[in-house]
Amino acid sequence: MNKLNIKRPFFMFNPKSYLYGKELLELAIEADKQAEKYPEMSIFVTAPFADIEMISKSTHNIIVTSQHMDGIIPGRGMGHILPESLYNAGARATFLNHAEQPLKLNEIISSIQRANDLGIITVLCADSIVEAKALAMLKPDIILCEPTELIGTGKTSNASYVEKTNSAIREVDKNILIMQAAGISTPEDVYNIIKMKADGTGCTSGITNAVNPKEMLVNMIEAAYEAFNND
Amino acid sequence: MNKLNIKRPFFMFNPKSYLYGKELLELAIEADKQAEKYPEMSIFVTAPFADIEMISKSTHNIIVTSQHMDGIIPGRGMGHILPESLYNAGARATFLNHAEQPLKLNEIISSIQRANDLGIITVLCADSIVEAKALAMLKPDIILCEPTELIGTGKTSNASYVEKTNSAIREVDKNILIMQAAGISTPEDVYNIIKMKADGTGCTSGITNAVNPKEMLVNMIEAAYEAFNND
Amino acid sequence: MNKLNIKRPFFMFNPKSYLYGKELLELAIEADKQAEKYPEMSIFVTAPFADIEMISKSTHNIIVTSQHMDGIIPGRGMGHILPESLYNAGARATFLNHAEQPLKLNEIISSIQRANDLGIITVLCADSIVEAKALAMLKPDIILCEPTELIGTGKTSNASYVEKTNSAIREVDKNILIMQAAGISTPEDVYNIIKMKADGTGCTSGITNAVNPKEMLVNMIEAAYEAFNND
Amino acid sequence: MNKLNIKRPFFMFNPKSYLYGKELLELAIEADKQAEKYPEMSIFVTAPFADIEMISKSTHNIIVTSQHMDGIIPGRGMGHILPESLYNAGARATFLNHAEQPLKLNEIISSIQRANDLGIITVLCADSIVEAKALAMLKPDIILCEPTELIGTGKTSNASYVEKTNSAIREVDKNILIMQAAGISTPEDVYNIIKMKADGTGCTSGITNAVNPKEMLVNMIEAAYEAFNND
Repeated sequence: MNKLNIKRPFFMFNPKSYLYGKELLELAIEADKQAEKYPEMSIFVTAPFADIEMISKSTHNIIVTSQHMDGIIPGRGMGHILPESLYNAGARATFLNHAEQPLKLNEIISSIQRANDLGIITVLCADSIVEAKALAMLKPDIILCEPTELIGTGKTSNASYVEKTNSAIREVDKNILIMQAAGISTPEDVYNIIKMKADGTGCTSGITNAVNPKEMLVNMIEAAYEAFNND
Repeated sequence: MNKLNIKRPFFMFNPKSYLYGKELLELAIEADKQAEKYPEMSIFVTAPFADIEMISKSTHNIIVTSQHMDGIIPGRGMGHILPESLYNAGARATFLNHAEQPLKLNEIISSIQRANDLGIITVLCADSIVEAKALAMLKPDIILCEPTELIGTGKTSNASYVEKTNSAIREVDKNILIMQAAGISTPEDVYNIIKMKADGTGCTSGITNAVNPKEMLVNMIEAAYEAFNND
Repeated sequence: MNKLNIKRPFFMFNPKSYLYGKELLELAIEADKQAEKYPEMSIFVTAPFADIEMISKSTHNIIVTSQHMDGIIPGRGMGHILPESLYNAGARATFLNHAEQPLKLNEIISSIQRANDLGIITVLCADSIVEAKALAMLKPDIILCEPTELIGTGKTSNASYVEKTNSAIREVDKNILIMQAAGISTPEDVYNIIKMKADGTGCTSGITNAVNPKEMLVNMIEAAYEAFNND
Repeated sequence: MNKLNIKRPFFMFNPKSYLYGKELLELAIEADKQAEKYPEMSIFVTAPFADIEMISKSTHNIIVTSQHMDGIIPGRGMGHILPESLYNAGARATFLNHAEQPLKLNEIISSIQRANDLGIITVLCADSIVEAKALAMLKPDIILCEPTELIGTGKTSNASYVEKTNSAIREVDKNILIMQAAGISTPEDVYNIIKMKADGTGCTSGITNAVNPKEMLVNMIEAAYEAFNND
């Protein structure tokens, strides 16, 4: 099935399990406005599984994204994340192999296969360059390069790391988009990482813990846009 | 928080990952009608995580039930099943430790704790008598006794197994309700198992694979009612 | 099969994966001398799987103990820990469900079953009182009560925690021996915990990181003996 | 550290958890004789963890191989497979990611790293061509291509599958040796698979379940030698 087109730069608001329900919805609606304002960008918003439908129903421009997806087909699979259920609820992208839920290699492969069957964009997480290169052989749509040790620290990857992962992945498969998001916590971080030639970036606690999360979200998206489009 | 009251006999329609979206919704609405017709019974319907909100919004009498729940609190937990998200979407019960997703003992304990915090009924699965006894120490609301080897075979537990598990569990904690559901595939099976003194029962493929699933669902609920209320 | 008799107080030297080969062997031989000196006590020494045979061949009085064991029978099971291989190499006891390797409840049950088949003493780890009570239903030989948050901190469980776990477990099954080992780092800690009515205790980094590990091991065993036998 | 040199063709006798103790030792000694007879070949023999030392001590020519290894360093790691312990016991190769113990991608990476640190040959298992290609990016020494569905069936991979996996892996990294072993159950199977340009092959139940396991082992090794060296 066809997947949604991913436009550059893309921005991923990933509130993980920090938010759900009304609080999440309000930020998703704000992200949706920004996605309408910047049609040249793709804005992704992740949601807990049981929030996906609510977010999808109330938004039109963002790409609603699942935090995980199992490589199963309809049938038994009690307690696992059914791809058809996610798609039907409105998810059009999914994370896989996040550092908080590392997967077996054969699970990554079967989940990518099911995502491709249904037209779901795959965002694979790598916490080292060698992992990024192995994942690149699986032809995901996006690889997120995030050294585990930087998650949640507020420290971003430096230019050398970004360049090294970019070139390592593009050497394997130049069609894969590259997301760099380690430690992004300010609009300046967003601006800098896009200037370093990431195709996209994103943020979790830099937004959810901000004094004004909505404003931070808006400013980060704007920073990504500016970095990509202005010299 | 207060949990919903569980009335006896209860019936659990557990379509696992066989159904999602519209097809699941139609059967859930039928179950809801039956729950209205038999207010002396509790009718549970499970749904994939991303279908919970849709099912909850369209029903009023059934207990919408999650297939699993992680024992996490709002925060990181990327890819895990957030209790608050489930509750907010309308889930008021959850399975734990199903044979298709066996859990670590410390995970079972933390999930029960979070379910109790939020007012979510816990349905713990045991595939042997000794496992049922250990789980009974954790004070769940319901224990489902289902010898793994019988799942999906169409063979039901016999009277001796039912009696043994009932007495083993009640010896540990007589407040726990006991569900017997191994191999239930016809209304007669439902009738017999309730007559054997199960507090409740349920079915998956006996309904989803029936020529007329809606009729099978209705007949099974009726059989449970009859077995419990008539001599 | 018959298991070795467990004498009280028992002491468990558990070097985890800190030691292997020659360094481990030297301490195991010292423990063996102490076990000969105090025949009224049981001295357990754990070893990495591939060190079990070497330790067993060079000792005669200690109970050589595995760090884990899978509940499998001879056959496929590639990469899993075969009970028959452990027994044949000389292991006569095994840990299960340690905080560094928590197990699924059904795995704990099958491992205990296999240990009982072969005559291997089972040491189950619980990191909370409710977990200890659930584990007690499985009739292990020893339960180790070790609140996860104290491991490696040098803080020991206080008298109230010890008393509570002791009485919780004995209420379920008074035949189970109780090991309390959280934060044990000096001979005084050993003395005190045995005086608090633990059946046994043990130590990891308090010995392996001591200036003189051999002396520390000897002093701890002596302290356990003194606490149990003298007023 | 330097690894042992792998000579072609190689033969892997992998009795998994079917054998341990004396029965395993006898076959390992026979394999050792064959390894002496055919110095141009490498003969690997796997053993359960607790049997590795015994096998190593009694053999001189085979490469004693572990069924698995965790990517840990000496320290806590209770219940995990310590690389230093394996090496010290005599293991000079290890399987990783076998279909009976599939690993997380980050675990595979850390285990390979530790194996390279110590000079342990890595044998990575792939059950599909795409998995083989991803694993090839990790620079293991050997990749075993074994479509999961053929394991234990007695059906071997056909020439087209062998050719496809060989070329897929060599395109990524031509230094990796390729083992094809799916369904090998007779000396003829061994002969044919080596003629199809596998660098090595191996067998489990074809040997352990043979009327005369020792004879079967000898004949298979001979068949590998003949296929590689004669036209």
